[in-house]
Amino acid sequence: MGDFGVFFGRADQLLDTAFEGEPELRVVEPRDASVSVFDLGLLRGDGVFEATTVVDDVPLAWHLHLRRLAQSAAALDLPAPNLRVLDAFVREAIRRMGPTPHAHVKLVITRGVDASLSAVSLPVVPTVFALVDPGFGRRAPEIEIVTLERELFRDSAERAPWLLLGAKTLSYATNMAARREYERRGAQNAVFVTRDGYVLEGPQSSVVIREGNRVATPHPRIGILHGTTQVELFAWAALNGLEISYEDIPTERLFAADAVWTMGASFVQSVTAVDGRAVAHDLAATDAINGFMQSQRAAIDAWTSSHLPG
Amino acid sequence: MGDFGVFFGRADQLLDTAFEGEPELRVVEPRDASVSVFDLGLLRGDGVFEATTVVDDVPLAWHLHLRRLAQSAAALDLPAPNLRVLDAFVREAIRRMGPTPHAHVKLVITRGVDASLSAVSLPVVPTVFALVDPGFGRRAPEIEIVTLERELFRDSAERAPWLLLGAKTLSYATNMAARREYERRGAQNAVFVTRDGYVLEGPQSSVVIREGNRVATPHPRIGILHGTTQVELFAWAALNGLEISYEDIPTERLFAADAVWTMGASFVQSVTAVDGRAVAHDLAATDAINGFMQSQRAAIDAWTSSHLPG
Repeated sequence: MGDFGVFFGRADQLLDTAFEGEPELRVVEPRDASVSVFDLGLLRGDGVFEATTVVDDVPLAWHLHLRRLAQSAAALDLPAPNLRVLDAFVREAIRRMGPTPHAHVKLVITRGVDASLSAVSLPVVPTVFALVDPGFGRRAPEIEIVTLERELFRDSAERAPWLLLGAKTLSYATNMAARREYERRGAQNAVFVTRDGYVLEGPQSSVVIREGNRVATPHPRIGILHGTTQVELFAWAALNGLEISYEDIPTERLFAADAVWTMGASFVQSVTAVDGRAVAHDLAATDAINGFMQSQRAAIDAWTSSHLPG
Repeated sequence: MGDFGVFFGRADQLLDTAFEGEPELRVVEPRDASVSVFDLGLLRGDGVFEATTVVDDVPLAWHLHLRRLAQSAAALDLPAPNLRVLDAFVREAIRRMGPTPHAHVKLVITRGVDASLSAVSLPVVPTVFALVDPGFGRRAPEIEIVTLERELFRDSAERAPWLLLGAKTLSYATNMAARREYERRGAQNAVFVTRDGYVLEGPQSSVVIREGNRVATPHPRIGILHGTTQVELFAWAALNGLEISYEDIPTERLFAADAVWTMGASFVQSVTAVDGRAVAHDLAATDAINGFMQSQRAAIDAWTSSHLPG
């Protein structure tokens, strides 16, 4: 296992849509890499992030992540990121790691130091950094999940945009609490459901079901992240002649489906039980999807670029 | 305006209930005070905090804050804080600032560096620090507020403890978004309401109404923080012969009440309008309450210690 890489960027380049040059990177020793205690990313979870798997130096589906990052930044009233320059920033960070067969990269943008704390006299600009983790572990192909109530309705995101339901923010304390909860229940993942009985997403993953010749996932307008790996799975499905659909999915359909998958970071896991009840599953198909995601990047990128999520 | 103070503590003292000594403080220059980029407080908003006003070297109602901090830590499965030692830690931090007539102190506990990132070889212990801000500004005595939908029900906290609704975590991105929303609407604060029509709390404050000879506030079991300043206001009310009550409060009662107050950090603000509709208000009573909170600390501490929140 190699060392982590930590790379800081400049907000006046990465968050200035008029910037036309190449981004500067500041490489920092992982042990010394830090942010101010006055950073609102720390004090308020006030920031956004994206993360993906790196295979042979390539951050997978990175165009989808950047697209979502821009949407998250808009939801939080952060400056609009310069996606071309951010893309170059992350690819250069990976390049500086040397040959990287398999890793994980995370890009973080915080609101920066609290502007109301003038006495600190630190610059009040967003903090931007990338972390590259070369020791990224394999996940199990088959898992059991539980449903966890999220106490929202399927129209909550529309009614209350200040809840930031579709934004990928640094405020993940409840996601982490949900993770501890499903572990306590002996499961390997959870799926949040609404109070009116619809499927949302996992604390750190998306959900897709297959019913016959058709794969379906909850529509992002229900108040979830638009999963990048879910879009990649839709590429596999479309290229294999399956019908694809974004729709509201009642929780009961998890139990009746021909397959239930959770997914993230370009890896799909086959669900074998929901709330302790066995569900139909298909490890061979799951392996095929994961093989496709690892080997057919050009096909995936072409399909996902021409079928950009809403 | 003096300088900020930044003081780091040791988890093996402050979060060890068996520790019997006095806490060590590490004083750090504000400009240089930082936490690791791998700290879960930053990457996941995974931590808890408390903050209060300091008057003449005394952190107001600090016993109530420490009590709530312990409850928040339990909700997040963090190690139980040693409240005696944490109390000494914060008081020593204030003492080292020199004479402090008026300031703001914040205490932060994060889960620390991500244990799954073994390559970083940083110690995996919670991060604990206190910030003292001597340039704490005055707030307006009268404000207008708006109601913001929180898309929860009054039994949501009970049904879904993983939502951490009663815990004061670092995941405040939605609180900050709600703040931008009420500012966009020209208001100075907001009150979250449930989907079934009950009052919750502000993004950074509690709500109390007066109806005749009676003051009422939402019961914390509805899924809100138990406000420390609200408890202090109840001390004022009880010592002035008013009836006090924790109960579910339908939103309509904000409009019909004899007074509506929002409050935090031992300061009460009088609400003059809700969603653009004028409401009954009483600046003289509000001034009396704030005067009481500033001058009658012994009476408040005695009352609040013998009427500890559920």
